[in-house]
Amino acid sequence: MIKVGIIGATGYAGGELVRLLLGHPEVKIVWYGSRSYVDQKYASIYQNMFQLVDETCMDDNMEALADEADVIFTATPQGLCASLVNEGILSRAKVIDLSADFRLKDVKIYEKWYGMTHKAPQFIDEAVYGLCEINREQVRGARLIANPGCYPTCSTLSIYPLVKEGLIDPATIIIDAKSGTSGAGRGAKTDNLYCEVNENIKAYGVASHRHTPEIEEQLGYAAGKPVVLNFTPHLVPMNRGILITAYASLTKDVSYEDVKAVYDQYYNKEYFVRVLEKDVCPQTKWVEGSNFVDVNFKIDPRTNRVIMMGAMDNLVKGAAGQAVQNMNLAFGLDEAEGLRLAPMFP
Amino acid sequence: MIKVGIIGATGYAGGELVRLLLGHPEVKIVWYGSRSYVDQKYASIYQNMFQLVDETCMDDNMEALADEADVIFTATPQGLCASLVNEGILSRAKVIDLSADFRLKDVKIYEKWYGMTHKAPQFIDEAVYGLCEINREQVRGARLIANPGCYPTCSTLSIYPLVKEGLIDPATIIIDAKSGTSGAGRGAKTDNLYCEVNENIKAYGVASHRHTPEIEEQLGYAAGKPVVLNFTPHLVPMNRGILITAYASLTKDVSYEDVKAVYDQYYNKEYFVRVLEKDVCPQTKWVEGSNFVDVNFKIDPRTNRVIMMGAMDNLVKGAAGQAVQNMNLAFGLDEAEGLRLAPMFP
Amino acid sequence: MIKVGIIGATGYAGGELVRLLLGHPEVKIVWYGSRSYVDQKYASIYQNMFQLVDETCMDDNMEALADEADVIFTATPQGLCASLVNEGILSRAKVIDLSADFRLKDVKIYEKWYGMTHKAPQFIDEAVYGLCEINREQVRGARLIANPGCYPTCSTLSIYPLVKEGLIDPATIIIDAKSGTSGAGRGAKTDNLYCEVNENIKAYGVASHRHTPEIEEQLGYAAGKPVVLNFTPHLVPMNRGILITAYASLTKDVSYEDVKAVYDQYYNKEYFVRVLEKDVCPQTKWVEGSNFVDVNFKIDPRTNRVIMMGAMDNLVKGAAGQAVQNMNLAFGLDEAEGLRLAPMFP
Amino acid sequence: MIKVGIIGATGYAGGELVRLLLGHPEVKIVWYGSRSYVDQKYASIYQNMFQLVDETCMDDNMEALADEADVIFTATPQGLCASLVNEGILSRAKVIDLSADFRLKDVKIYEKWYGMTHKAPQFIDEAVYGLCEINREQVRGARLIANPGCYPTCSTLSIYPLVKEGLIDPATIIIDAKSGTSGAGRGAKTDNLYCEVNENIKAYGVASHRHTPEIEEQLGYAAGKPVVLNFTPHLVPMNRGILITAYASLTKDVSYEDVKAVYDQYYNKEYFVRVLEKDVCPQTKWVEGSNFVDVNFKIDPRTNRVIMMGAMDNLVKGAAGQAVQNMNLAFGLDEAEGLRLAPMFP
Repeated sequence: MIKVGIIGATGYAGGELVRLLLGHPEVKIVWYGSRSYVDQKYASIYQNMFQLVDETCMDDNMEALADEADVIFTATPQGLCASLVNEGILSRAKVIDLSADFRLKDVKIYEKWYGMTHKAPQFIDEAVYGLCEINREQVRGARLIANPGCYPTCSTLSIYPLVKEGLIDPATIIIDAKSGTSGAGRGAKTDNLYCEVNENIKAYGVASHRHTPEIEEQLGYAAGKPVVLNFTPHLVPMNRGILITAYASLTKDVSYEDVKAVYDQYYNKEYFVRVLEKDVCPQTKWVEGSNFVDVNFKIDPRTNRVIMMGAMDNLVKGAAGQAVQNMNLAFGLDEAEGLRLAPMFP
Repeated sequence: MIKVGIIGATGYAGGELVRLLLGHPEVKIVWYGSRSYVDQKYASIYQNMFQLVDETCMDDNMEALADEADVIFTATPQGLCASLVNEGILSRAKVIDLSADFRLKDVKIYEKWYGMTHKAPQFIDEAVYGLCEINREQVRGARLIANPGCYPTCSTLSIYPLVKEGLIDPATIIIDAKSGTSGAGRGAKTDNLYCEVNENIKAYGVASHRHTPEIEEQLGYAAGKPVVLNFTPHLVPMNRGILITAYASLTKDVSYEDVKAVYDQYYNKEYFVRVLEKDVCPQTKWVEGSNFVDVNFKIDPRTNRVIMMGAMDNLVKGAAGQAVQNMNLAFGLDEAEGLRLAPMFP
Repeated sequence: MIKVGIIGATGYAGGELVRLLLGHPEVKIVWYGSRSYVDQKYASIYQNMFQLVDETCMDDNMEALADEADVIFTATPQGLCASLVNEGILSRAKVIDLSADFRLKDVKIYEKWYGMTHKAPQFIDEAVYGLCEINREQVRGARLIANPGCYPTCSTLSIYPLVKEGLIDPATIIIDAKSGTSGAGRGAKTDNLYCEVNENIKAYGVASHRHTPEIEEQLGYAAGKPVVLNFTPHLVPMNRGILITAYASLTKDVSYEDVKAVYDQYYNKEYFVRVLEKDVCPQTKWVEGSNFVDVNFKIDPRTNRVIMMGAMDNLVKGAAGQAVQNMNLAFGLDEAEGLRLAPMFP
Repeated sequence: MIKVGIIGATGYAGGELVRLLLGHPEVKIVWYGSRSYVDQKYASIYQNMFQLVDETCMDDNMEALADEADVIFTATPQGLCASLVNEGILSRAKVIDLSADFRLKDVKIYEKWYGMTHKAPQFIDEAVYGLCEINREQVRGARLIANPGCYPTCSTLSIYPLVKEGLIDPATIIIDAKSGTSGAGRGAKTDNLYCEVNENIKAYGVASHRHTPEIEEQLGYAAGKPVVLNFTPHLVPMNRGILITAYASLTKDVSYEDVKAVYDQYYNKEYFVRVLEKDVCPQTKWVEGSNFVDVNFKIDPRTNRVIMMGAMDNLVKGAAGQAVQNMNLAFGLDEAEGLRLAPMFP
């Protein structure tokens, strides 16, 4: 049994980690960390876990936790993981960080977009960007895994093949993203009140959202050169789900079959990426509660652009599910262990 | 492996059966029946099942199905199961009927409330009412199981102990129920359109809903005499979930501890019924996607009434989950096999 | 022009007052009071008012306000109005209090249910309970009007005629109420976050909600004796709307026509109370944005009970709309002035 | 009083016309046309109109209607208005068509995108495209007004000034649009059921939506040359509201103030177009129920693109409200008569 500790277990991503790990046959959760609810019963915070989790919330003492756990998930605000992690911890336990602390390789870009000094830049090189479908081999055996952001996961997986194969001009990429409200976290803010979100849609973080450089970096690897793009997230009145609609100009005269063949080449053997059939548009509801990303595309011959679409559950493939997938890889387990949940509909 | 056939696999309850059975280690689905979508790929109707279900929809030929399956689930409109079932079928396969055809022991009451002639009254006596927590022993080995209605499951489990122990006067029972919209089915009706249901709540079937006699019959067994009560369902703008709030006059001067002890006596060993802690009100979200029923109560000394509350997922414990629980019992499996899903939040 | 001041203009009820008063031809708003947003542009808090309201938020100085306004609306938490009001203020401006401070005639009951000492008990006798359809004459010319609570408005109007005419036994009244989330206010609380409310329903304040004694007092006047009843509110995932479903035992053998005649007798000439046609259940969506209350009933001969139903918009007839209706009456205007908005659907 | 007839009064846009026209002081509705509900009370279809509208639904006999009405609104499926209108009708009554029949000047484009033969091409030239802020003068006195589509209204108003002033390259325009579900109409289709739309978002009509050529035509007038662009609509789980997020490359090195000045130049005097303050993103909720369009923009210096955003209520400014605005103009009334409703929040 892999002993798991979770720091930030009472946020939405932390709660989803608990849900998934309870169903994982090779795992035992030994630490429910929560700064806000120390000494309270975990199930009193998340009543869905009543009679399923008896444990009480612990603090975020990563040093102590590293003695008890084989792997530590940090589902915490930016900066916390970097401020806690050290060589002693990493020598005892693997760390899978769901925050952005180790996602960007260029510390200057991190510090600029996140507006804070990086507390542990010495580990940035070692950290593996845990987008399993792209970096599978590096994840195996890694000590420190940077779990990708929700928008970057959906965006990168939807666009990566066409950039890598040179079918689209990276300079023309525009990503228009839509997210459910759980992505905004469980903090008590007026903007996230039911009455403010319900029956409403808005863009936010226009031309300034922190996930932009993360997507640019990953697509830059595919392009073999720096990529600068537009990324606009929107807040949608639903709990879960991310949909991205991306636009780019085609570099060649390609048919539906040509593009489909490229997607198939990359994802044919990927359990968690489903390339939909022709003209079927991804819908977030079709992946809810699961670790799937559904992708598809449409060529517009009038404008010579391709519209790429991707849908996933932001709390699963966009956070906790991908973290478990990374854990499975890092510990040499079946990559899909504990993650073969069928999407729930309706 | 138990070979399962589903008639009505493309309704919401049928779809939920597929979701649950795909995760059941002892089951193989051999027949996806759907009158409306014969010869179409099942996953083209429910895209969540893309790459998980390759089969094509079949018709509702129960005779042919009985040769291929060990158990047949009928998730169909009232009357269909009764019109198809016969001794030959029951001798070859168990039938778990999710419709109301075999729930009521008095055929006259069935015909009055459902407005149709019962096509197979000869099987009513044999049929076991599959409310597992109450009728567990009869379900084991049964050939024909009447899976309880959604409202009756939640109502009966919430109220049964207090009636059985004589703590409340059955003549005073009033059940005010609230349901998500999946309970209305997938038929294309104006009343169930998004814009008609969203931002809206209404009562329906006031003093005339068909689940009334089913609840009355079950509580009547507990009371040892006929029970007549008020039951009012409401349509709530959410996909899943039933909440019942029930009222009854106390027959004795009892404390919180007295009543709690009664609930504990009935449900202490029941995995799927969770008696919440004092003053915690059940919420449908806390059980979503799971087979749990959360119950609790509050004594009002001012009026000498007890308010009983129960929450569950109408598609799981209220339909497909309970049907699987019944199948597990009927085939001698672990009752919770395939059903240990933690509720999904948010 | 009537000069209006609003204390608490940035809560949801305050915002609705602004919306309604902007469309009122006889009114000018001279004071947008808001403790939290003093000196900020009102339209920066409520962007819907951009270019419609240019004013900046003021504090809650009721003394100063009384010099500038003919009428002061207090849409504030319990206790504030009572702590500010005095003879000097009332001699200069009418006060319409949307909080509970002056709704209950028995100060002991107020202090018990609200858990605070009443700061101005000397005005309780003078205050008129502003349920216009019942107390119209007293409202005319009143200086201090206690605007009824949202649940009490809907409950009382739905039940009052049958109590008054002796058709139901008051001791058997049970009110099961359902409310949209705007009733919970705009405070930033975890429980009111989108992800906590959406796809969820729960009861709250069971056997302890503060609106209980208010309903009991009003129905007590109708009964001519004290009434004790059960009232259970529920939180529904929608912005606006209250639905009440009330149950009581009939005292006589009455027909549909008999009961309908009683409702018609009370509401035939009431513009804002609509007694629906037979078997049409009230829906909150049918009154959204308007000052209407839709009521109807159903007799259940099996249990000898009548089920009474009422639907209204909690922010309009349940708060701001009724406050304007009271203002109209108090100033001798057409009672419906500014309130003839048709409900918005969908 | 202007006598108004509505053909298609029981669709969502028709219902909204009724709501708005009931509050219009210069109008009397004389004909509630509805093919599906002939001879039924209008208020039995839309219970919100109970006691407000006593009339019974009529058929769609435009000939007879032209004798009784001064203006006819057709809120009907594509093709119906063109099949009914003729010179005799237009000589007796103005026609404001909410369908697409007379929006496109090139009949071949209409027939290609709508897949039907145009039945009255002889009136295309005469028809005025009723985007009031752009074509105000032509609308005055027009006999036949093509009321713009919902997406084109929001898209064109958000983008038009920058195209007209040459600040963006029209060949780079990409419009990503999001709409509430009322835009899909009241037809009973599975795809529009509550459970299919709720907790879900998807793109539809990708690279093929019929509003594309309408937007292209209008922006083409601004550009002075043909425009070809990408337009992708999405279905959002809310009743009302359209948000468009549009992207284009800047042709010049401009500052925020430069672009703001352009928007102000076009919309400073427009009551219904609100250019928001810097960094305030439009939200559909802030315009709900009103005829406003809120627009804003953000320059991204990294990509040299401008992101243009617009929000409006699809049933008001996107359909019924704009139709009334057109009627006001055509009859020489105050353009905002009956339309000064403040947006409703929450």
